[in-house]
Amino acid sequence: MIFVLGGARSGKSFFALKEASKIRGRKAFIATAEPFDEEMKERIERHKKERGRDWDTFEEPLMIADAIRETISTYKVTVVDCLTLWLSNIMHTDLDVNDEIGRLIESLHPTKNDSRVYIVSNEVGMGIVPDNDLARKFRDFAGVLNREVAELSDAVYLIAAGTPLKIK
Amino acid sequence: MIFVLGGARSGKSFFALKEASKIRGRKAFIATAEPFDEEMKERIERHKKERGRDWDTFEEPLMIADAIRETISTYKVTVVDCLTLWLSNIMHTDLDVNDEIGRLIESLHPTKNDSRVYIVSNEVGMGIVPDNDLARKFRDFAGVLNREVAELSDAVYLIAAGTPLKIK
Amino acid sequence: MIFVLGGARSGKSFFALKEASKIRGRKAFIATAEPFDEEMKERIERHKKERGRDWDTFEEPLMIADAIRETISTYKVTVVDCLTLWLSNIMHTDLDVNDEIGRLIESLHPTKNDSRVYIVSNEVGMGIVPDNDLARKFRDFAGVLNREVAELSDAVYLIAAGTPLKIK
Repeated sequence: MIFVLGGARSGKSFFALKEASKIRGRKAFIATAEPFDEEMKERIERHKKERGRDWDTFEEPLMIADAIRETISTYKVTVVDCLTLWLSNIMHTDLDVNDEIGRLIESLHPTKNDSRVYIVSNEVGMGIVPDNDLARKFRDFAGVLNREVAELSDAVYLIAAGTPLKIK
Repeated sequence: MIFVLGGARSGKSFFALKEASKIRGRKAFIATAEPFDEEMKERIERHKKERGRDWDTFEEPLMIADAIRETISTYKVTVVDCLTLWLSNIMHTDLDVNDEIGRLIESLHPTKNDSRVYIVSNEVGMGIVPDNDLARKFRDFAGVLNREVAELSDAVYLIAAGTPLKIK
Repeated sequence: MIFVLGGARSGKSFFALKEASKIRGRKAFIATAEPFDEEMKERIERHKKERGRDWDTFEEPLMIADAIRETISTYKVTVVDCLTLWLSNIMHTDLDVNDEIGRLIESLHPTKNDSRVYIVSNEVGMGIVPDNDLARKFRDFAGVLNREVAELSDAVYLIAAGTPLKIK
């Protein structure tokens, strides 16, 4: 499992996809973004085309634990893009955030097969403490989530300005 | 002196405590957090218990320069957690921020004894410029403070998602 | 070309100037800051004096592509400080941001002479998603801009608390 952490528009998805594409075989892309408007729908479709025929895309804004478990057992490679968007989606439901993080972490536990998983997430804790209470909670949850995923990962990359830095 | 810099909930305190715990002997923990409510009081008490009997805790939201000078001369290890919280406390008083930063820096100047000091601080300058004037000032002061402490330190770690990266 | 990326008050300009000063010969400093008030005017003047007689300063809040092309062909060293401020200036005009980024990137394309260029920019994408729509757009543009400049650069440094980390 490889964890790819970076700021907004830092090139983290690009890096994860580039690395994943080096591996031959069927690949799964779990997208947590929800297409709210036409522009976003088009963008998602364009990205799907760019990935090409080796990839199957699963749009899963909430139930990614199940999706991950499924793709790990059937695909050579899984890319999850991205965790912080998923967290934000979860926080806009009535679901218990800690429970859902627990379920996600469990789905990521090392399996015996040789399936590779790339997890993309945003670093969101290096700015000023937000005024907004919800944003503060989000930041705290994201910190915990990123730590737990990093701990399970075999490698962790921090991406800044498109440049990957291996920190684990 | 070891400087541990990281985002919110990045695992910086955990890292500093883990490293500090490897050293035998009496250890001092200087906490700058103020227990505003019951929840926070309980959290502080829980953390105190988790550190165990090797540690003495000093709650010092403002006058950390004196506390540091004191613990450096009497303990094998001092952990200060954290600088940005202290800075925020100072900015909510009438004290002159530059003077107080100066006093702090002075207290950290290398001593002749072999006492080790871990300083924990937040990286807060990698987000968008805050709208809020006070937040902007805080960010500027935090940048200056972190630079000065890093310069005095023998080692600097940047923590992201619980993963330490030695940058000095 | 050397790209120096860092948070607010992280010491990125200081690092770029220190490195640039090691090179002998005439040096150009392209400042994108606009002196809005007396305090800022004084600060700009003070910095100019600190750089010393080896340096010529060009204040260019908007048209930096032309300025860079000019200084690259006539100076041994050019320092551009900083890109995100320039981006913010551009976004406050009617100019097309993508066009201007394109013009800038073009001006930075490796030249045949041995002139060295230091580009200073802020990392702004590691905080919480801003509420403000303009700030969000700025963050997205800054991410794209920083990636493109990093890609063209021979070396990239990430600065945290005054400490440079070579990431490329």
